[in-house]
Amino acid sequence: MIRLHLSDDLAAGAEITPAADQAHYLVHVMRAKAGDALLLFNGRDGEWRARLLAVDKRGCRLAVEAQTRPQAIGPDLELVVALVKRARLETIVEKAVELGCRRIRLATTRRTNADRARVERLQAIAVEAAEQTGRLDAPEVMAPETLDRLLDGWDGARRLMFCDEAGDDPQADWGGPDGRARPALEAMAGTADPGPWAVLIGPEGGFDPAERARLRALAFVTPVTLGPRILRADTAAIAALALWQAALGDWGRTKA
Amino acid sequence: MIRLHLSDDLAAGAEITPAADQAHYLVHVMRAKAGDALLLFNGRDGEWRARLLAVDKRGCRLAVEAQTRPQAIGPDLELVVALVKRARLETIVEKAVELGCRRIRLATTRRTNADRARVERLQAIAVEAAEQTGRLDAPEVMAPETLDRLLDGWDGARRLMFCDEAGDDPQADWGGPDGRARPALEAMAGTADPGPWAVLIGPEGGFDPAERARLRALAFVTPVTLGPRILRADTAAIAALALWQAALGDWGRTKA
Repeated sequence: MIRLHLSDDLAAGAEITPAADQAHYLVHVMRAKAGDALLLFNGRDGEWRARLLAVDKRGCRLAVEAQTRPQAIGPDLELVVALVKRARLETIVEKAVELGCRRIRLATTRRTNADRARVERLQAIAVEAAEQTGRLDAPEVMAPETLDRLLDGWDGARRLMFCDEAGDDPQADWGGPDGRARPALEAMAGTADPGPWAVLIGPEGGFDPAERARLRALAFVTPVTLGPRILRADTAAIAALALWQAALGDWGRTKA
Repeated sequence: MIRLHLSDDLAAGAEITPAADQAHYLVHVMRAKAGDALLLFNGRDGEWRARLLAVDKRGCRLAVEAQTRPQAIGPDLELVVALVKRARLETIVEKAVELGCRRIRLATTRRTNADRARVERLQAIAVEAAEQTGRLDAPEVMAPETLDRLLDGWDGARRLMFCDEAGDDPQADWGGPDGRARPALEAMAGTADPGPWAVLIGPEGGFDPAERARLRALAFVTPVTLGPRILRADTAAIAALALWQAALGDWGRTKA
């Protein structure tokens, strides 16, 4: 069944006029007809069954019928990802949404080649992924910031899983027990609520030594390594988020 | 530095004439010049430093100098993946190589829409990913088989991590402790060598009830679920392989 994220309030009996792009999607892409049922969510009111009323040239209208699921939200997990090539960044955003991130922060680092991103397009990808993956909220994609500024303003209560590729740093040796992702994360587990976390993924060229030194000196940082092979940024992001969800997140709990 | 997989034997002093497509890649894509150093591997003789000798119209020649790493191979992990849309299947092959699979088997299931795949192109993607990720072997991509035939011929000594999306199967409820990927895999850990394993990823529509029933009845199968959200096939493949490597594979061991 079609799932649609919108900003309107949802309640039994409400009638909604979707924005032009959503009406186009419903009527022309998904070929929905008057009378068809669909699911709506807005990040606040849970998920609702609705029905498509009249379709005309100016758009369409939806009648909200009954709640199908109460509002719920996943763990407080953010992804901080360095700008990488557009196709890989789009993949990362789609996957971060499927893997339950609440927010996606874009960062520029010393080895980032780009300093701009099409944030609006990434936001649209995030909303579409939320519709497909069955979430009840649509994660926010934030405009790029430098990694330094991001760390300057960091809330120390939010732990940061720093995925460090060995690269040119002898400390980040694969053999060391401290850096292995699973034991490092499991050392943090044991409470029902892991509290706020973020996962940090660098650019394809890795972090530079000054960035590494700063990150490793911060009390809220847990450095981890992701195995003996070189991973592309999208692979590293998906792998790290999956390990976090399995160790600390909602992959062992009930349906979101 | 450029890394190149080839089939020639590698030994100090050997001279190699790369195939036309590799010569083209070296000279025209990577713009390598006579005298440039590169790394070679063939899956048998370890990794060797070589130097580009003369370049002419007919191709180029390489002089093998010294071994940089002895031959090594990762855990005996295979991926069995249902045919999905081409772009996602290509992503899955690239990622399976980065995540250390030794072999990629393509399967058709009752809900698979395709029954053909461009195996040669997928094999080329696997070789290129092996060159980039720093492995010393290039995984094999096998021609598609039906899931039933694949299971008929299965070696029972190879365990199969069956990634079951809840879908229409009430048994595969996210809340049940048996299906959670991390505890399920960790119950299997504890020996230095986990032995041969495979990860099974279904098509976007999931497995059908008869396939599920057969899989769940097989002694070598470990069913797992991957969290409360619906994952696309590429996300599920990457997540499952990362969890396997972290729980049983080489993500806690020394450099491959």
